[in-house]
Amino acid sequence: MTSSKSYSLLELSKLLETTLIGDGNAIVDNLKTIQDANDSSLSFVANQKYSKYLSSSKALAFIVHPNTIDGIDEGNYLVTDDPYLAFAKASSLFSSNLIKQNIGSVHPTATVFPETNLGKNVVIGPNVYIGPNCSIGDFSSIRANSSLVSDVQVGSNTHVHNGAVLGSDGFGYAPSKDGYIKIEQLGSLIIGSDVEIGAGCTIDRGALGDTHINDGVKLDNQVHIAHNVELGSHSAIAACCAIAGSTVIGKNFKMGGLSGVLGHLNIADNVTVGAHTLITKSIKESGEYIGIMPAQKPKDWAKSSIFIKRRK
Amino acid sequence: MTSSKSYSLLELSKLLETTLIGDGNAIVDNLKTIQDANDSSLSFVANQKYSKYLSSSKALAFIVHPNTIDGIDEGNYLVTDDPYLAFAKASSLFSSNLIKQNIGSVHPTATVFPETNLGKNVVIGPNVYIGPNCSIGDFSSIRANSSLVSDVQVGSNTHVHNGAVLGSDGFGYAPSKDGYIKIEQLGSLIIGSDVEIGAGCTIDRGALGDTHINDGVKLDNQVHIAHNVELGSHSAIAACCAIAGSTVIGKNFKMGGLSGVLGHLNIADNVTVGAHTLITKSIKESGEYIGIMPAQKPKDWAKSSIFIKRRK
Amino acid sequence: MTSSKSYSLLELSKLLETTLIGDGNAIVDNLKTIQDANDSSLSFVANQKYSKYLSSSKALAFIVHPNTIDGIDEGNYLVTDDPYLAFAKASSLFSSNLIKQNIGSVHPTATVFPETNLGKNVVIGPNVYIGPNCSIGDFSSIRANSSLVSDVQVGSNTHVHNGAVLGSDGFGYAPSKDGYIKIEQLGSLIIGSDVEIGAGCTIDRGALGDTHINDGVKLDNQVHIAHNVELGSHSAIAACCAIAGSTVIGKNFKMGGLSGVLGHLNIADNVTVGAHTLITKSIKESGEYIGIMPAQKPKDWAKSSIFIKRRK
Repeated sequence: MTSSKSYSLLELSKLLETTLIGDGNAIVDNLKTIQDANDSSLSFVANQKYSKYLSSSKALAFIVHPNTIDGIDEGNYLVTDDPYLAFAKASSLFSSNLIKQNIGSVHPTATVFPETNLGKNVVIGPNVYIGPNCSIGDFSSIRANSSLVSDVQVGSNTHVHNGAVLGSDGFGYAPSKDGYIKIEQLGSLIIGSDVEIGAGCTIDRGALGDTHINDGVKLDNQVHIAHNVELGSHSAIAACCAIAGSTVIGKNFKMGGLSGVLGHLNIADNVTVGAHTLITKSIKESGEYIGIMPAQKPKDWAKSSIFIKRRK
Repeated sequence: MTSSKSYSLLELSKLLETTLIGDGNAIVDNLKTIQDANDSSLSFVANQKYSKYLSSSKALAFIVHPNTIDGIDEGNYLVTDDPYLAFAKASSLFSSNLIKQNIGSVHPTATVFPETNLGKNVVIGPNVYIGPNCSIGDFSSIRANSSLVSDVQVGSNTHVHNGAVLGSDGFGYAPSKDGYIKIEQLGSLIIGSDVEIGAGCTIDRGALGDTHINDGVKLDNQVHIAHNVELGSHSAIAACCAIAGSTVIGKNFKMGGLSGVLGHLNIADNVTVGAHTLITKSIKESGEYIGIMPAQKPKDWAKSSIFIKRRK
Repeated sequence: MTSSKSYSLLELSKLLETTLIGDGNAIVDNLKTIQDANDSSLSFVANQKYSKYLSSSKALAFIVHPNTIDGIDEGNYLVTDDPYLAFAKASSLFSSNLIKQNIGSVHPTATVFPETNLGKNVVIGPNVYIGPNCSIGDFSSIRANSSLVSDVQVGSNTHVHNGAVLGSDGFGYAPSKDGYIKIEQLGSLIIGSDVEIGAGCTIDRGALGDTHINDGVKLDNQVHIAHNVELGSHSAIAACCAIAGSTVIGKNFKMGGLSGVLGHLNIADNVTVGAHTLITKSIKESGEYIGIMPAQKPKDWAKSSIFIKRRK
């Protein structure tokens, strides 16, 4: 989104809680990578491997760590021990955040159950459906084409991106001689505050108890979370992952894309799972877990595959 | 969903076809797990490992197998050889099923082609789109924000959950010197009765012939089924699976989450595939198949990975 | 979709740029597989293994390679060196393409930002949401229940299928002592011409720079593409794949279903990745890559699994 906002470096140094080196009256009007910057850009070096571009970049000013400019005696800098965090805060200053512009509005094309408990300053987007027994906390948003099916509590400052389905029926059936008999899902989905639910995610409400997505959780797009899962606070899950029913996951869980956790497991705090990995057992010890089959040329893969299958 | 329904144990014993032991006049008004139950709860023991909670549970009554209460001479019980099935039936009695409340309605925000053949007592939810050449059987529902693109026949008692896309174009292109040339998809998608399609699923209609989802199939959320697949009756597929084009799958197929079946294969009846597993060849023999790469600590995984790749 | 269109073989031979053998006045009114054909069908043999059905097929005419009818001296044929391509072109002739019927229309239930740059002959379907700073090229379509969140440029002759979400927020957060701080996504999503985006796909706009989906790309359903990816022209990606942030992929990339590519990688032109495979490193050499864990019976898989884990 092209921003029309501009700031002096003096203003920015205060807003971003950084130390200014250089011209406080200089005006920046956009935020760019060090390679794409123009002569009115603010840029940043969060990873030392990009510091080599400092001298050739066109940016007017840079957010940097003190070490990055050690021995450099010209240019404009906003200096901080955590340049990436200062960059994140700067991104908000240059964003024309549509949600903030529409605060407090329910789009006329949304279908919202009359008893829904809508907090202050919520945004309900176009074509959203909100069913019975739902509540939305202050400053939260439900974006276009999402559904809150039934019995969903959303905390404050939580954002549900487009096309997500929350509070859907969990996948539960009892086998019988007449085929599967559906287990009606009587529980709720309880989502904390400061949560983001990516586009196209699906999170089922509980079967008898509840599904819990705790404070500060961030879900990328197309993540699926089954009924009665508890996902610990400040967890971050990449795209296209799935967590099966009744699994309880601790705080600060991280998972790469296309990965999964089987049902009815317990996962400790501070566990990190690689991409394209399946967790099949409970994990008591924090740390990293990975189970990627290495990709090879077809001939080599065929040999590895036969070798793996022969181990009997 | 909190239910306001209440039943005497005598009523329940008849409705659930169970044998009553205890006070037939006692009234239960909710269904809970054995650990979460309160003093007006009906609960159940379907798995013997939970029977240890029987004595400490606050529930007023329990659905149990006769063996579970062997030697116990107090309390209220609904006794049956299949407690899980009786629990499933009980869940329906305590559900305030919104679909049943809206039976026979097309939501005013839905866009339905005028020639659509709508059966009796169907429910078409908010923002649903139903395109040309579709029919919906009796007592079926299409939930909010779903699309039936074109040429979709839905049987009776079938439920399509939110955000699903049925009858979409199959993925078919002919390579040419000018890039891929689209193969227009001229077939249909035919879905049987007593089927559930989870939230966010996508099922393509056929290219020339038809895609078939047979009676009693249950799909969890975010499952993808490609054009010209035939999925046998009473199959159950967990979240985030994909079945590629023209594969024919027998009855009672089961598949764990994040798994797939390649295209143009034949899979026998009564095959069960583990989670995060890919089936690359036709299967003639019923039974279980699994292909999960074990998850390990990074150091151990790296060694395994190098070892696998050295087999040449 | 049942077509009411009919063509003489003479007409077809011209439209499909094929050589007619047989009765140019014969009329076909449908396109079917060689096994399902009826006596007014056009059919085709694109794969020699189906030529055995030629003599028993009821079709009135066949699209064939010259070799297929070598020595056959009766029947009606449209002869070409590329029967599959001629079949693809024929599919278009028999399609009652709804999009073509609705050309130039914005459905009244769509919510489109007033400044949106709509090209000529675009189709915007029911319940579509188009946010700020978007443009749609000539003859492109956005199908029902899709969202273009913000800053999305769509080329011409490009089709976005149902329930897709384009231009969503990329997954970017800076860790802080107060939890994750969101990095506002300031870039765009730029989609070329002759692109198809499958049902339920999600493609994020760029964080600072842009996400690029180049000309002629075809995405199957439920594909996820993260922020700042560049996907080379004429790439084709099967269902349920994910490409992580900032990865740059060359031309003619192909990927089977349920596969992924990690972030910040460079992938050469003409790379093909198998199904259910994760690419973890940059690829400089064109060709095929595959990393599927073989599926086995549980007993054999358990042995392989233990064997893999013992390599330390």
